Amino acid sequence: MADSARRIADELRARIGSGELSPGDRLPGEPALVGEYGVAKETARRALTLLVTEGLAVRKRGSGTYVRSFRPLRRVANKRLSQAGWGNGRSIWSADVDDRELRVADVEVAEVPAPERVSRALALSEGDPVVVRSRRYLVDGEAVQTATSWLPAELVRGTAITRPDTGSGGIYARLAELGLAPARFAEELRARMPSRAETELLALPEATPVVEIHRVAFTADDLAVELNEMLLDAGSYVLEYHLDSQSE
Amino acid sequence: MADSARRIADELRARIGSGELSPGDRLPGEPALVGEYGVAKETARRALTLLVTEGLAVRKRGSGTYVRSFRPLRRVANKRLSQAGWGNGRSIWSADVDDRELRVADVEVAEVPAPERVSRALALSEGDPVVVRSRRYLVDGEAVQTATSWLPAELVRGTAITRPDTGSGGIYARLAELGLAPARFAEELRARMPSRAETELLALPEATPVVEIHRVAFTADDLAVELNEMLLDAGSYVLEYHLDSQSE
Repeated sequence: MADSARRIADELRARIGSGELSPGDRLPGEPALVGEYGVAKETARRALTLLVTEGLAVRKRGSGTYVRSFRPLRRVANKRLSQAGWGNGRSIWSADVDDRELRVADVEVAEVPAPERVSRALALSEGDPVVVRSRRYLVDGEAVQTATSWLPAELVRGTAITRPDTGSGGIYARLAELGLAPARFAEELRARMPSRAETELLALPEATPVVEIHRVAFTADDLAVELNEMLLDAGSYVLEYHLDSQSE
Repeated sequence: MADSARRIADELRARIGSGELSPGDRLPGEPALVGEYGVAKETARRALTLLVTEGLAVRKRGSGTYVRSFRPLRRVANKRLSQAGWGNGRSIWSADVDDRELRVADVEVAEVPAPERVSRALALSEGDPVVVRSRRYLVDGEAVQTATSWLPAELVRGTAITRPDTGSGGIYARLAELGLAPARFAEELRARMPSRAETELLALPEATPVVEIHRVAFTADDLAVELNEMLLDAGSYVLEYHLDSQSE
């Protein structure tokens, strides 16, 4: 029984791999598989579930199972972080989308005591005041990412960084005006399965991992001015990095 | 019923989050949950499955469900790729491990016609001859990564790059000796669920994504000399990048 399900999944996977079934195509339903392979309905269902678990297919409620489409945003870390990117008034985030509209939603700003991990990243003492900016990013109306920035309150209190709309060029342009322009960034990332809360926040389909990115921005004097904690829908992003062999 | 399972999962998740249950700890079994919450065995099982699906816990056959431990390797892209890293005789991979032993296994080398995606990445014509080197990387005896390098055969034929053991400093040291030292790298990555074959190849536990990395190495003259396609067990890696705000 389980072997039949695997064999059917193998055949469907091959048809996806060969391009016979394209992204967005509807897979044969349970009745069709029952008819084609002469198996029980339960076996047909298991075969489809295997493909969903592998992230190859997604279920649409009351409609069927479809080949997952992967039409990612391209996040070019270097372009986003270059002076050219935010020095002339564009938000660095605009590099994330090509033709599709990226929209910021649910911006919240507060001043709070730094949690332990934040104080460590920013070389503060635990409990030192930090400005925390959280927001979600939507493309075509769908949430693809959350981001939470933490900045030392002593540095940015009273500036536009503490307002929901930071103005042209965003946080980094405002930091530059304060003489605190980011000169380098340390970015760490890992991929994992989301918690239930994260699944709801990003409206993730089944079998969709998240990419967690922690990025610290440093001035030329090695002062840590921002920690940005990002959570990306892995099904919506390709991440790109350009590296020199000389860089250390 | 489903709500009871969610409530139990929420409580266990909170106990993991608070540190009361640590990585590697055994979670209460089904009988214990049945006793503690007065639910059916099926409900207890569903609660544990929820945590496994979220990647918070792993099942060990015949033993129980345990809090997943995350003791990652740190892959520092810049360090790995710097001249300092491979210029003096160490393989760039040694930077991936700290105290743990990284071992290369199953090295295979062949000369084949370039598949379409490879010819595109290396600016060759489809079917042009390429040398393909595939291998797996093991830590503590467990597979954590596969890597497949593709190089233009016209450039590297007859060199140590076509032998299983490429010698001190690896591929990049040999390319440097040919006057083809990599000067910059373009790295693209995405995270997704593994196929069944990939799950077996890397012996991945349930609910473990993979990170797919494609990296192209270019000489100072912008000649593409290598495409490396890597597949990483996401549960085994933190990826680190250092970026200058000036870089483009």
